[in-house]
Amino acid sequence: MAKNITIAVDAMGGDHAPDMVIEGIAQARTFFPGTQFLVFGDEARIKPLLDKQPDLTAASTLVHTSDVVTSDMKPSQALRKGRQSSMGLAIQAVKDGTADVAISAGNTGALMALAKFLLRTMPGIDRPALISPLPTLRGESVMLDLGANVECDSNNLVQFGIMGAAYVRTVLGLSNPTVALLNVGVEDLKGKDSIKAAADVLRASKHLPLDFVGFVEGNHIATGEVDVVVTDGFTGNVALKTAEGTARLVTDLLGRAFRSSMSTKLGYLLARHGLRSLRDHMDPNNHNGGVFLGLNGLVMKSHGGANAHGFASAVTSAIDMAQNDLIRLISEDLQRIVDDEAAAGAA
Amino acid sequence: MAKNITIAVDAMGGDHAPDMVIEGIAQARTFFPGTQFLVFGDEARIKPLLDKQPDLTAASTLVHTSDVVTSDMKPSQALRKGRQSSMGLAIQAVKDGTADVAISAGNTGALMALAKFLLRTMPGIDRPALISPLPTLRGESVMLDLGANVECDSNNLVQFGIMGAAYVRTVLGLSNPTVALLNVGVEDLKGKDSIKAAADVLRASKHLPLDFVGFVEGNHIATGEVDVVVTDGFTGNVALKTAEGTARLVTDLLGRAFRSSMSTKLGYLLARHGLRSLRDHMDPNNHNGGVFLGLNGLVMKSHGGANAHGFASAVTSAIDMAQNDLIRLISEDLQRIVDDEAAAGAA
Repeated sequence: MAKNITIAVDAMGGDHAPDMVIEGIAQARTFFPGTQFLVFGDEARIKPLLDKQPDLTAASTLVHTSDVVTSDMKPSQALRKGRQSSMGLAIQAVKDGTADVAISAGNTGALMALAKFLLRTMPGIDRPALISPLPTLRGESVMLDLGANVECDSNNLVQFGIMGAAYVRTVLGLSNPTVALLNVGVEDLKGKDSIKAAADVLRASKHLPLDFVGFVEGNHIATGEVDVVVTDGFTGNVALKTAEGTARLVTDLLGRAFRSSMSTKLGYLLARHGLRSLRDHMDPNNHNGGVFLGLNGLVMKSHGGANAHGFASAVTSAIDMAQNDLIRLISEDLQRIVDDEAAAGAA
Repeated sequence: MAKNITIAVDAMGGDHAPDMVIEGIAQARTFFPGTQFLVFGDEARIKPLLDKQPDLTAASTLVHTSDVVTSDMKPSQALRKGRQSSMGLAIQAVKDGTADVAISAGNTGALMALAKFLLRTMPGIDRPALISPLPTLRGESVMLDLGANVECDSNNLVQFGIMGAAYVRTVLGLSNPTVALLNVGVEDLKGKDSIKAAADVLRASKHLPLDFVGFVEGNHIATGEVDVVVTDGFTGNVALKTAEGTARLVTDLLGRAFRSSMSTKLGYLLARHGLRSLRDHMDPNNHNGGVFLGLNGLVMKSHGGANAHGFASAVTSAIDMAQNDLIRLISEDLQRIVDDEAAAGAA
């Protein structure tokens, strides 16, 4: 039987907190009734929300704090002032072992800084990475790093590949995910030296539970060519935001097109049921759950603008990761790379 | 009166060459009747096409060559074997001064290699860059470098900014274009050192005919936040292809949505007139005309999949650049940076 999970919840992070947070964990709990919640935040605002959800209240422990990490706080400020905030205490609970995973929809930079400071990087990982699922033509893929590290060397990229594959195995349930490095061409000779060196290591490792396929280009992200797209944090952040901006451009133009005449408005009415599946597929709430991988503990980042459904979706991903012991999987896979390199050296 | 321009045309490059090339230059000629064409390629295939266009034939000189740069040729092969190809001869015509600008819809890497080899970089430019217009919510912006240089330093980025602004002044007709560096945040402290150093130089230069606004993020490309988005060739290539892939994802899902039921099909029929404006705006044929900037001569790259309308659009951009003497503008603006730095050093 799957282990019951305790989730440390920053109830004050996100544009619509705390209401959407409490509603979100209540929704997630209906899928995983054994889950326990440590809820951190302003008691005066949270208690009335919990009072409306007796089942959730029975599974929750509310811990009051009036400190909060605001959305405009710099990472350095969060490190100085945020340790007793709802965000800081949620991460601390993971560190103390009282929770299996922390979740917040708050300030990304602050969450990353606090998580790294409190949990430290795991053995074998030089730098943590931010990973998130993305909608594709095939369904869903993941990309990392999305902005934790502006510059990355080949070791970082190899580690990102391993962590990304472990994430897909636990959250998307694929046993042998396809992994590729993002590049400016698919030929072996193209791109930066760090990428080519990372490809050499991943190609040589025979015992990883992943299928390394080489390079993909930017357009292959949306086609879902591979399950895991690996890149440095600068490129990943630009690609993610470019994709979001382009999707919004097309949907904005589509909205304009539908509003342009009586006939198009009527067309919209007739097509709106079908268009809903498009909107659902592109809705970030349905692909919610960025994670900082590579720390001694799990910290999940929900979109700041998530609604309750989106937050619930992130919570269920967090439960998957914790139940499947993502951190242990990553450790084991890192050891496989070390063993492969030792074997290659001895041969 | 505007100067009449001679265009060297690679008639054999592109998926639908030579038909779409000849039809494209015929269309462009109706807007700029004084334009002359040097048409390079297989006479047996091109002459019958020209024979159908007597006005174009009168304005054209057909130069036969049976050599061709194929789409799978590597840049190094193109340099060895492509000098007498339709592509190589078109660039050579610019070098010799018999044409003002060369245009090809062929192999990008080969075109870049041949152009750089034959024309050399202009004084003050360390590396050429590939620039192209992109559709945005406001209309059209440009981004560079789109893949000519995988790694770029701060000097390269400053030069790209100057060249991009000059392109926008000549092709889009804006007198004081807004320019920004692509980054992972808009705050001054974020991002790579090379980007921050480039921002310092552009911010300090008081006499450039451009409005440097600092940093933009990936999502600002599609909103059209600025006229010129400056980045290294790796990031620019990934961003461009990610945007293309995402636009295709949304439109593919839209197609599926419209095909999903009788009602949605009827909705499509009613809305299709409005949807055409969306398709037109996103159609790469309407934003055609990548250019290698920074060489001693103008070389334009059309999309390989362009249709005649798209090729014509690239040709008219080429005429704008040549008539407005883009290369002279770039030289003058580079001198302004040098003067500003000298003045700052003397102060």
